This record gives sequence, C-alpha cells and structure tokens, in this order.
Amino acid sequence: MATLGDIGVSALINILTAFAFLLAFALLRIQPVNDRVYFPKWYINGGRSSPRSGGNFVAKFVNLNFKTYLTFLNWMPQALKMRESELIEHAGLDSAVFLRIYSLGLKIFVPITIVALLILIPVNVSSGTLFFLRKELVVSDIDKLSISNVAPESERRVQHIFNKYLFADYLAFLMSYGLFRFFVHIGLQYLFTVYICYMLYKEYDNIAMMRLQFLASQSRRAEQFTVVVRNVPQIPGHSRADSLDQFFKTNHPDTYLCHQPVYDANKFAKLVRKRDRLQNWLDYNQLKFERHPEKRPTKKTGFLGLWGESVDSIDFYKQQIKEFDKNMALERQKVVKDTKSILPVAFVSFKSRWGAAVCAQTQQSKNPTLWLTNWAPEPRDVYWRNLAIPFVSLTIRKLIISLSVFALVFFYMIPIAFVQSLANLEGLERVAPFLRPVIELKFIKSFLQGFLPGLALKIFLYILPTILMIMSKIEGHIALSTLERRTSAKYYYFMLVNVFLGSIVTGTAFEQLHSFLHQSPTQIPRTIGVSIPMKATFFITYIMVDGWAGIAGEILRLKPFVIFHLKNMFLVKTDRDREKAMDPGSVDYPETLPSLQLYFLLGIVYAVVTPILLPFILVFFAFAYLVYRHQIINVYNQQYESGAAFWPHVHSRIIASLVISQLLLLGLLSTKKAANSTPLLVALPILTLYFHKYCKNRFEPAFRKYPLEEAMAKDITDRTTEPEINLTAFLTDAYLHPIFQSFEEEELVEVRVDKHQSDADNAGTSNDLSSPSPPQGVHHHSFSPQYIYNFSSPAHYGYHYEAEP
Amino acid sequence: MATLGDIGVSALINILTAFAFLLAFALLRIQPVNDRVYFPKWYINGGRSSPRSGGNFVAKFVNLNFKTYLTFLNWMPQALKMRESELIEHAGLDSAVFLRIYSLGLKIFVPITIVALLILIPVNVSSGTLFFLRKELVVSDIDKLSISNVAPESERRVQHIFNKYLFADYLAFLMSYGLFRFFVHIGLQYLFTVYICYMLYKEYDNIAMMRLQFLASQSRRAEQFTVVVRNVPQIPGHSRADSLDQFFKTNHPDTYLCHQPVYDANKFAKLVRKRDRLQNWLDYNQLKFERHPEKRPTKKTGFLGLWGESVDSIDFYKQQIKEFDKNMALERQKVVKDTKSILPVAFVSFKSRWGAAVCAQTQQSKNPTLWLTNWAPEPRDVYWRNLAIPFVSLTIRKLIISLSVFALVFFYMIPIAFVQSLANLEGLERVAPFLRPVIELKFIKSFLQGFLPGLALKIFLYILPTILMIMSKIEGHIALSTLERRTSAKYYYFMLVNVFLGSIVTGTAFEQLHSFLHQSPTQIPRTIGVSIPMKATFFITYIMVDGWAGIAGEILRLKPFVIFHLKNMFLVKTDRDREKAMDPGSVDYPETLPSLQLYFLLGIVYAVVTPILLPFILVFFAFAYLVYRHQIINVYNQQYESGAAFWPHVHSRIIASLVISQLLLLGLLSTKKAANSTPLLVALPILTLYFHKYCKNRFEPAFRKYPLEEAMAKDITDRTTEPEINLTAFLTDAYLHPIFQSFEEEELVEVRVDKHQSDADNAGTSNDLSSPSPPQGVHHHSFSPQYIYNFSSPAHYGYHYEAEP
Repeated sequence: MATLGDIGVSALINILTAFAFLLAFALLRIQPVNDRVYFPKWYINGGRSSPRSGGNFVAKFVNLNFKTYLTFLNWMPQALKMRESELIEHAGLDSAVFLRIYSLGLKIFVPITIVALLILIPVNVSSGTLFFLRKELVVSDIDKLSISNVAPESERRVQHIFNKYLFADYLAFLMSYGLFRFFVHIGLQYLFTVYICYMLYKEYDNIAMMRLQFLASQSRRAEQFTVVVRNVPQIPGHSRADSLDQFFKTNHPDTYLCHQPVYDANKFAKLVRKRDRLQNWLDYNQLKFERHPEKRPTKKTGFLGLWGESVDSIDFYKQQIKEFDKNMALERQKVVKDTKSILPVAFVSFKSRWGAAVCAQTQQSKNPTLWLTNWAPEPRDVYWRNLAIPFVSLTIRKLIISLSVFALVFFYMIPIAFVQSLANLEGLERVAPFLRPVIELKFIKSFLQGFLPGLALKIFLYILPTILMIMSKIEGHIALSTLERRTSAKYYYFMLVNVFLGSIVTGTAFEQLHSFLHQSPTQIPRTIGVSIPMKATFFITYIMVDGWAGIAGEILRLKPFVIFHLKNMFLVKTDRDREKAMDPGSVDYPETLPSLQLYFLLGIVYAVVTPILLPFILVFFAFAYLVYRHQIINVYNQQYESGAAFWPHVHSRIIASLVISQLLLLGLLSTKKAANSTPLLVALPILTLYFHKYCKNRFEPAFRKYPLEEAMAKDITDRTTEPEINLTAFLTDAYLHPIFQSFEEEELVEVRVDKHQSDADNAGTSNDLSSPSPPQGVHHHSFSPQYIYNFSSPAHYGYHYEAEP
Repeated sequence: MATLGDIGVSALINILTAFAFLLAFALLRIQPVNDRVYFPKWYINGGRSSPRSGGNFVAKFVNLNFKTYLTFLNWMPQALKMRESELIEHAGLDSAVFLRIYSLGLKIFVPITIVALLILIPVNVSSGTLFFLRKELVVSDIDKLSISNVAPESERRVQHIFNKYLFADYLAFLMSYGLFRFFVHIGLQYLFTVYICYMLYKEYDNIAMMRLQFLASQSRRAEQFTVVVRNVPQIPGHSRADSLDQFFKTNHPDTYLCHQPVYDANKFAKLVRKRDRLQNWLDYNQLKFERHPEKRPTKKTGFLGLWGESVDSIDFYKQQIKEFDKNMALERQKVVKDTKSILPVAFVSFKSRWGAAVCAQTQQSKNPTLWLTNWAPEPRDVYWRNLAIPFVSLTIRKLIISLSVFALVFFYMIPIAFVQSLANLEGLERVAPFLRPVIELKFIKSFLQGFLPGLALKIFLYILPTILMIMSKIEGHIALSTLERRTSAKYYYFMLVNVFLGSIVTGTAFEQLHSFLHQSPTQIPRTIGVSIPMKATFFITYIMVDGWAGIAGEILRLKPFVIFHLKNMFLVKTDRDREKAMDPGSVDYPETLPSLQLYFLLGIVYAVVTPILLPFILVFFAFAYLVYRHQIINVYNQQYESGAAFWPHVHSRIIASLVISQLLLLGLLSTKKAANSTPLLVALPILTLYFHKYCKNRFEPAFRKYPLEEAMAKDITDRTTEPEINLTAFLTDAYLHPIFQSFEEEELVEVRVDKHQSDADNAGTSNDLSSPSPPQGVHHHSFSPQYIYNFSSPAHYGYHYEAEP
C-alpha cells in the first residue's frame, strides 16, 4: 500500500507532466502556423479566415510578439468569458450541456469535499484502532484518514470502560467510539445522497428547460416537419411511393405534405469512397510534379505498387477516375431507376410541426410492426447505411450485440491472454530466427519482456471504442447521435466492470463473475466494500494519470497537430483542402462521457469512505471544465445537434453510482461489526431509485417526445410571420441521400464562392482538377438549387441549409 | 411421502366430492325456482323473463318433468354448443378470451402429456437407481415415475460394464444409463419450450386479431371519442373549464368537441350508499308489515337497535330518508356549484376517433406532468372515486403499495402467528372463564385445538383478495379493469411465493427470503430444484382439492344460491328488486386468473420432472373449461368490457413459468451430478426471454394503443353512413358522474318500463315507494333524456346507452 509520500511523488510527476503539456500548448497556440489546429472552430464559423499575424514573412509562421509569451495562461480566463447563451449559439446545446456535466461535478463535489474533510478526517484519525491495535500490519497513511481506521464495535470495551471510569469519561469515550462514528458515516451518506439528488433534480429541470427553449428558438428545420417511417409494406400492384402517398393521405389527410424515398446506395457510397481515395492520390502526384517539374511521378501497377509495369502516375489516376465516374454514373442511374433499390424506409414530411408530432408519437397501422413512425434525425445526423437494414433483423441484432457486449466485458481477457502467450520472446525467435542476436541483447530483451505482454492489451484498449462503435452500428441505429450514445453506454459498462470493479477485486472480470455467481447476493457488496478503502491510493493515482495528465493532453491536441501539419505539407492545395485538413471533428462523447461518469462514481463511492480522494476529483473537474470550455469554443465543430439527448443517460448513471456507493457502504459496514447499524442504510437505495423514477416521469418526456402545445405554438408563429412560405420546396430534398448530392453541390459551392470573390476567376475554377466534372445523367435528378450543401465524404457532412425561399 | 395408493384414495375422495357437487347442480338447476340463480345472464340479456315451467302452481317451483332428471349432465354439450363468435356477442370479448386460456391449457398440455408419458415414464422407471441402491430409503411409487429415479452419472459404472461385457451389452447399458437419460430430459425440455412458445405465439396473434376485430365491429361508443385528461392546471383568473376549452381549442383545433368536468362527489356517494341502506330497511319493514298487517314493526332508536325508545319502523325510516334526501339535495347543489369540487381531471371528447387517438397517444404540454392524456375507460368501467386522488401522490402511493405487497407476500405469517398465539385455549378460558366447563369437554377441546390455530390463517386467506383489491384501489387506478388486473398480479405473486415456493421449500416465506439472500444465486434453483420431484404428490393433491373440487363448487354457486333465496324471501317486492337480487356479477378475474396461471406453472415445471402430474392438470383444464363456458353463457354478466386487456399479463406469466421451469431443471440436474450437461440448458431461458420480448414488440401495441389507420377507417365509415349524427348530444353526458344520474334515471327507467307495459299503471308507479321522489334542484342539471341509464348503486352500474339520436 502506498504511503502519503508515494502519492505525493506520483502527484508531483503528474502535475509536472500536465504542466509540461500546458506549457507546450501555450507556446504552440500563439504561433500563427498552428492557428488552424488550435482555433479551427473560428475558421468554420467564418469568424476568421487567416491567422492573426504581423506583416513580414516569418511572422506568418512564428509568433514574434514576445509580450504574448508572458501571458501564456490567459486562455483560461478567456475560456470562461463566453456566457452560456452565447456558447449555445456558438457551439450548440450538446456542447453547452456537456460542459454543464463538469460544472455539475464541481457543484456536487465542492460542498461534499469540504463537509467530508472537516467531519470525517478528524473522526477517522482520532479513532485509534489502527494505530494501537494493528501496528504490526502494514497500514498506509491514507488508511489512517479513511474509514478503515474506525474501530469495530466492541461490547467488551464498553463494559470495560463503563466499569472503570466515571460517566464523563464514558461520554468522552463514546465520542471516540466506533459505533458512534459509523453513525456519522451513515448520516453523512444520507446527507450526501439528499444533496446529490437535489442537485441532480435542479440540473435535470434546468437542462430540460434549456432543451425546450433551444428547440423553440430554432428556426425552421427539416426535422421538425419530418418523420422517419420504417417497415413500409408494399401493396401488390402499387409502387412503394404510391402506397406511402395513399396511406398518409388517408390517415393524415390535413397535414401530409410529401415523402422522400430512401435508396439503397451503399454500393454507390463505396464507389464514392474509392474515387475519393484515387482523387487524393492524383492530388498528391500532381503536387509532387508541381514541386519537382523535372520528373513526372511514376507508379507500378502490380500488387500494392510493389511490382509490375511502371506507368505515369498522373495519367494512370486520371484514367482510373474517368472509368470510375463512368461506372458511378451507371450505378447511380441503376439505383434511381430500379424499384428494388428503394428501401422500405421513407422520410415523410408534413405541412406543420403539429402534424409531424402527431405522426411520430402515434401508432399508424393495425399491425404494430408495420408503418413504424419516429422522429427523423437531423439530416446531417442520419446514418444512411443503417437505413438499409431490414427491420425484422433488428431484434436479432440487438440480442446478438448484447450477448457480445456481455462477453466482451467479462471475457475480453481470454483472447488477449492467448495472444500474449503467443507474443513472447520464444515465439518471436521462432518466427524470425534472424532477429535472435538482437533479441538476446540484455537491454532489448528486458525491454521486450516488459513490453510485449502488455502490447496486445494496449492495442485492444486503444481500439476498444472503435470496436464498440462497430457493435452499435451493427445494432442498426439510424442516427449518429444514437450510435454515439449506445457506444458510450457500452464503454461505461466496460469501465465499470473492468476499471472500477476490476481494480477493487482481484482477478479477471470472468473470475469475478464466477465467484459472484457462487456467492450470496448479500456477500457481494461485502466482498467489494471491504476492499474499497484499500484501493483509494490506486484510484488517486488513476485520477492523476488518466484525469489530470489526460486532460492536459487533450488541450495539446498532439495527434491532430501532427496530422494537420503532415497534410498541410503533402496534400493541401486549395483553401478547401486546408479546411478539410483542419477539420477538428466533434467532442468524442463515446469516450469522454463514460470516463466522466467513472469520476462521478469514484467521488460518490469514496466521499464517505476515504474523503481524501475528493480533492483530486475536484481538481480534475475544475481543470477539465476549463479545458473543454476552451476546446468547445475554439476547436470542436459538432457534426450534429441532438439537443442534449444524452442527458437522461448521464443522470441515470450518476443515480446508479449513488446506489452502488450505498450498497458498498452497506457491505463495508456489515463487516465492521457495525452490522446493527446497516438497516438504517437499507432505505437509501430504495429512496434513491424512487427519486430516479420520479425524475424519469417528470423530465424524460421532454427528451423523447415533442409536446403538441409547443408544436402548435411554433406553427402559429410561422403562419403569422411567413404566411407565404413554400414548404414543399424547403422539404423536398432535405433528406436526399448525400451520395446523390455530393458532386452537384461541390460544384455549386465552388461556383458560389468564386462568384463572391470575382467573376473573372470563374473559368479557372471549372477547370480546377479538385472539382471533378459531373457525371452524365445526374443533372436530371430533381434538385433545388436554392439550398447549398457541401458533402465531401460520408464521414464529413457539412450540412447547411438556408431558410430564405 | 405418499404412495400411489394414497393418491388414489385422495383422487377418489375428490372425484366423489366433485361428482356430488355436479349432481347437486344438475338437480338444482332444472328447478324453476332456481332458474334465476343458474341462468341470470338470460334474464339480463332479455332472453328470458320468467322460468320455463309448466302450468300448475307446484311446477312453478319444482321441476316435475322427470325426463329432464335423466339427462342431468346435458349442460356439458350445451355449454360447448355456442360458437365463439356468438359467445363474443353474448358475453363480450373478455369472457371469450378468458375461456381461450383454458383451451390454450388443453392445447398445450394434451400433446405434452402424451409425449412425456410415452417417453419419460419408461426412461424413469427402467433406470433402476432407486430400486436397487436406495431400497432402505422411503421412496414412493410416484418417485419411481419421476426424474428422481434416474441414476446419477457414474464413471465407475461405465468402466466396470465396459470391461465385463461386450459392446452390445454396453449399448444396452447406455440406454439405461443416467447421463443419456438426462439428455432425454433436456431434449424434451427444449421440445416443450419450443412447442409452448409456438402455441403462445399463435394464441397471442389470434387474440390480438380478435381484439382488433372486436374493436372494429363495435358500434359507436363514447370511449372511442373520449380521452381522460389528468393534472389539468388552472390558469389564474380562468375557471378550469375555460382553461380546458382554450387549451384543446388551441392544440386540437379541428377535432376538439367538448369536455365533461369531474366532480369530487365522494361525500355525496357516501350519502347515496347510506340512503340505499335505509331504503332497504324501509322495504324490509314494509314487506314485513304487508305479510303481518296485524302488527306494525317497531325499532329501538338506540345503539344498534338494542335499546332506547321504541318507534314505528316504517315511519322512522321514511322520516330518515326524507331528511337524507334534503341533505343530499343540498350536498349535490354544493358539489355542482362549488368550483373547488371540480377536480383537475376531465373527460375530453373529440369529433372523430382519429382526434381522440391522436390526443391519447401524444404528449400535450411542455411540462410532462401536466395535461396527461390517456384513453378514457368505458363509462361503466370508470372507478370514479380514484379520480379525486391528486396526481402527485400517485407515485408515492405506488411505492408504498409495492413495499406493502412485498411485506404481505413475505411476512404475512408474522401477524397471523401472533394472533394464533393469542387464540389458544388458555387465552379463551382467560377471556371467558364461564366457558371453561364447555371447553374442558374432551370432544370440544380437541375440536378447538385443531380449529383455532388455523382459524386466523383461514380468515386471512379468505379476505386476502379483498385486501389486495383495497391495495390496488389505494394505488389510484381509475378503471375497474385495471384494478382487477393489478389485484390479479398481486395475488399471483402471493401464490407463487407462498403456494408454489412455500410448498416446495420448508419454512415460511420470510425464512426462505432470508436463506435466499444468504445463498449464491446459482444455489437457489438447486435448493428448490432438488425438492421439486419430492413435492409432486402434494401438488397432485392440491390440484384435486383446489382444482377439481373447487371448480365443481364454482358451478354449484352455493353462496349466490343461498343469498338469492334469502333475499327473495325477505326483500324482493318488485321485478327490479328480483333482478337486483339475482345479479350474478362478473367472473372473478382477480382470483381465477392467478390460480389458472399457477396450474400452468405446475404443469410446465413438472412436465419433464414428474410427468405423472400432467393428467391431473389436463383433467382440471378440461373440466374448468366446460364449467366456465357454462357459467359465462348462463350466469355471469360482465360489468365492463376491456377487450381482453388482461391477455398480455397472462402471456408474460406463462413465459415466466417457462423460465422458472428451466431454471429449476437446471438446478435439479446440477445436483444429479449431470452438471456437465447443464450448459446445454443455459441457452433456454435467454431464448425464452428473447421470444417474450419479440412478442411484446409484435403484439402488445394492439392492446395499449389504437392505430390511426383503424380510427380513420371507422371515422370514414361513420361519415358515409350517418353524415348527420349529432355527436355532441351523444357525448355530452356519457361521462357524467353516476351519482348525478341515479335518481333521474331510476325514475326514467321505471317510466319507460311502465309505458311499455301499460299507461294506466303509470300513476301507481310514481307513488311507488321504491322510487323516491327526486330531490329539489336537480332537474335543472343538464340531462339528455334520450339515453337511458340505470344506476342503482356504485357497485352495480348497469350502463346501457343507445345510439339512435
């Protein structure tokens, strides 16, 4: 067990690391050359088009204003400056609510830390059991500050003291007596639970209000009028489009407007992705040729470009792209014309928000598996590929994935251990005997022996979020926001079992599962509860490594930094290319939300048991709040806006943490021979779960449904302010498969941009190779040119539509 | 443990009892005097107005046609004659689906019984472990037919036989070898599960279709157009009615028609009940006086009529009723005029079924706890008293009741044991010393000693359904059908824990709970599973006593028989009184459904373990099907029609039985040292639960929601067939609190009846004392006389409305 000194050393190292990261960040961010890495949001927003810099050439890349080096920490107050309402406008509600989770952490843990430290540390220290009775045991200083130090109830001692001393002494003894202290712990657990529930309630209320206000303040958006219908049956003799029109004209006669069929364009999307890759190669080769005009780049046509005939690269890729374009045009026509490629899914639009709200919330058909309606996600939030999944397979997919997640959580060590058993030195020597002399070197050998076994695990943990995301995609959700929420849930289960429980109880998760299955249900919290105080030092270290240093790494953005500069060097030709290269992406909810929830869990569990852990959590929350506020203001550009749809999950997981902490305290106290006091704690989980149920009823509908009152109010406002609006034009192509738009719009965007700049450049742009000539047979497709889209790849829909007719 | 002989004796006794009941029924039912006890449904239906009987006076009471005595069992084929479609028309869908549960039992258990008996009995008997190895143990013959008789796996034996005999012998041994047999059991469990799931799926599909057809075939009904709105907020400065009108006119402008406020008339209802009691006493005394005109009945005014001044009873009650009428008129005016007695609940009616379906299924308000809409129950299904419960208290009520049910299920023995400890002979002697000489008589003493301890338990079990119904009422459901379903669920939990588990595991439910909490989760099915085969004899006896004899008692209707004849003798004056006295009530779902589900559980659990139990279950299902078919055709008159809303509960409890049986077989086999084969069984519960989830998604919406397609289709039909219908008139008073109708309608009914009979009687009727003069100030209340209601007491709403305008 670590002593206070060890913790101090560890803290120092981590603080130094974090500080080094911060310093690096502070220096790098003020260099103009890095401006697009650390402030991309402003470029995307249109707030900035080129780095702020001085006049001369050097100042374009390096900051020469030495005054700014002195104020290198001024990003912190800057990050706090923006008010929440501005933040919502700037970055969306998702980001603002994401930040509120950190501030909620602060609001919850600041008072708890103060109370816990003031009350519990003296109580735990003054109770001398560990000091006097167990000196032979190796007891860390941390343990002295935790509940481990409180003496178990001892009838004998009471008797003894009562006989020997006077009543006053007895009272004094009572003060130092274990049982009394456990009541302090139990009382504090009650106090903290009530306080946390109160804060959660206020926060939920607040966020529900924010969500409704946000939805109400939004301008006209396609998803407010649109419902996604799944399992559209095909009436024999009618086309699917006819069946749809007929059904909705019958059942929503006053509100039905139009519908957009969904095409199975996954094959086409694959072609688009391949073509993008070819285009990249072409760009790269052309740039190479421009820089070294003396030598045309060549390429071998064989496998991986390693052998075969050598050809001119530029000609080769141009030829390839030309062929691809021909194929794609054919494929596109096939998709549009073939009735079989129309999926049993459609986006149905209504004349009013009220009509859409009614359709989304009601059951349409007698057969409850047909005509399933739900709110359409935002156009840019749609995960098109999953719309092609047949609805019947969804339940099976869900079953399989939930079994897989269970297996992954509990048995992930098995394949890794297997790989580890292969990836040892003997194995390496057998596969590559020529490496033997190198391996046998003592330094390298010890390095490999230390490194190889953990390698498989490290690779696994690195790709885990990707694996979980793939699993969620297999589950068949049709919105990116849902996919991220589901991934985040899976990651949370993994962390809960393997980081939290796995660190507390020894053995693999599988062994734990096995032993838990063979223990009584009351024994489990006891087994875990007892180990809780002993693992405090481990978790303090964890918070410092994963929390502090991790967050400092987040602000430094080392990976995007390197990638941007590499791309900038080799690929970027036009401004559009540069924009693509600097694309900061969204906040990584699937990873940040679960780890955030883990910190809540740690804080809540240790609040009563080992309160010395709380300041470390506090530092994490405060620091992460600052960093993410900065990142959200300056870096991230959310891909979609779900209106804080993740909040109910965050809320319920904090509630789960509360219940876990209560059960563990129950288990811990029952082993402390203070078992008589535990009935006092039994009521807590029941009340907490009841509170959760209440919140669910009270607030969750605001996140799942759209009230008719609201819809009607917005409809009426619209009707009075813009009575002449042409909704059909507005909605016709809102949910067109992005694939069908990519080329036309790319061209359109360019044309527009050029027009804004100068009309003379126009001819040059249309000859620009980065803007491919549109394939034949596409222009016939219905397309309303007043809406400007900018689809470049399926992973990067920059979807903007403007409301003016 | 009982031997086969014991079972035979028990079976004989029970068969004789059942046969005696049947004989008594067969004789009693053909007596004209009992016609209203055994065929009330036909009187209510209007199919019969007086007993079929011969001409003379005696034949009016006793059946003199001796030919009918010979065909005394002909009710059985008669009960089967009516086709299901007629049955639905005759008794409603609830009753028809209730019968389908019994026929489902037959469909499930007939093939299972045949397969199980053919395959398992030979397998179990031929395996000789119990015969040869455990002769010293007391093993019943039943055990020989059960899984207990299959030898545990024994490696040694295989070795031994393999060494000694030839291969052919080895094969023969394999046939008799335990492990192989357990695979037979496991295979059969799979087979049965698949078969039961298939039958359940077919049945659910069928019943969902029947429900939709039934709803589609119904004529215009108030509940199709009406939604119950709870938590109606009061806008300051507006009355609640204005707020309602405004809200729905804004948010459902095209479909909103009108609303009916709900008054808090619980105090008034109490007065009505008291007045009814007084009226009964008055009737009784008047009848007494008519029979003995020489002596006017008198009554003492003091406590319980035991002392005090003696007064003329008829005058006394007349006076009392007069005073009551005055008070009630005042109270009624107060209720109608006082705005505070208008509850925040209203029945909101729409112009079309589509409008109501939309309103019922959508969220109305931004605040999800306000304007809560749901389908209105049928007017006769409304439990008015609970509409006055404030909505906020509902969640608390639910929490308290679920805790109480938990306590009741697991700790009900504690108060009963306490009462039992008081109600012993010494206690009795101390309280009533004068009884000592009587008690000390040996015969009486032994009777009391055998009787007293069980008395408290018997009383408790008798009133248990009432207790559970009161609990459900406290939970605050607003429909009688919901109340009955909730009560039925609670009763099922009680039976599951205290009858099923309680009989298998020794000790009280509380002790079981305690030991289960301290066992590992895998140990619990083992503990129970092992005891399962040993308790087969007990359950066979249980099926015979509770099932066979109970059902025979059901058809005899001894209690209603006695009560009807008593009432007929002392209270009945008019035809209406006789109708009231013969009121058969509804099928007692809260008691019959849970016990039915218990039989499913027993059958499914023992199908593989001790198949000899199955024929007893089969006999129960066949017999009960016949009896209830007869009762539903001839006796019961459903108070409400929920459209088989209970089916999803029945379905999910049969699924639960399946899962329980799988877990118990798993536990049983794991102790049989055939533990290696148990992984084969683990997949079963998962697949079964998955099947349940699939069914829930597939069919449950048909029971919870009303599809818009359906609503629109009916609306269109209505519009084309009856374009001129005045819906407002039809709906205005559909949901008027029954209290406000009771008097007017009683009079109206009488007037109508009289008009049909003869106009001359009219004057006599209005002087009739059974029809009280209407209180003042009531006639002003809006009331549409074209609808004839017949409300006599809150427990007996005979609600009929006619659709002709």
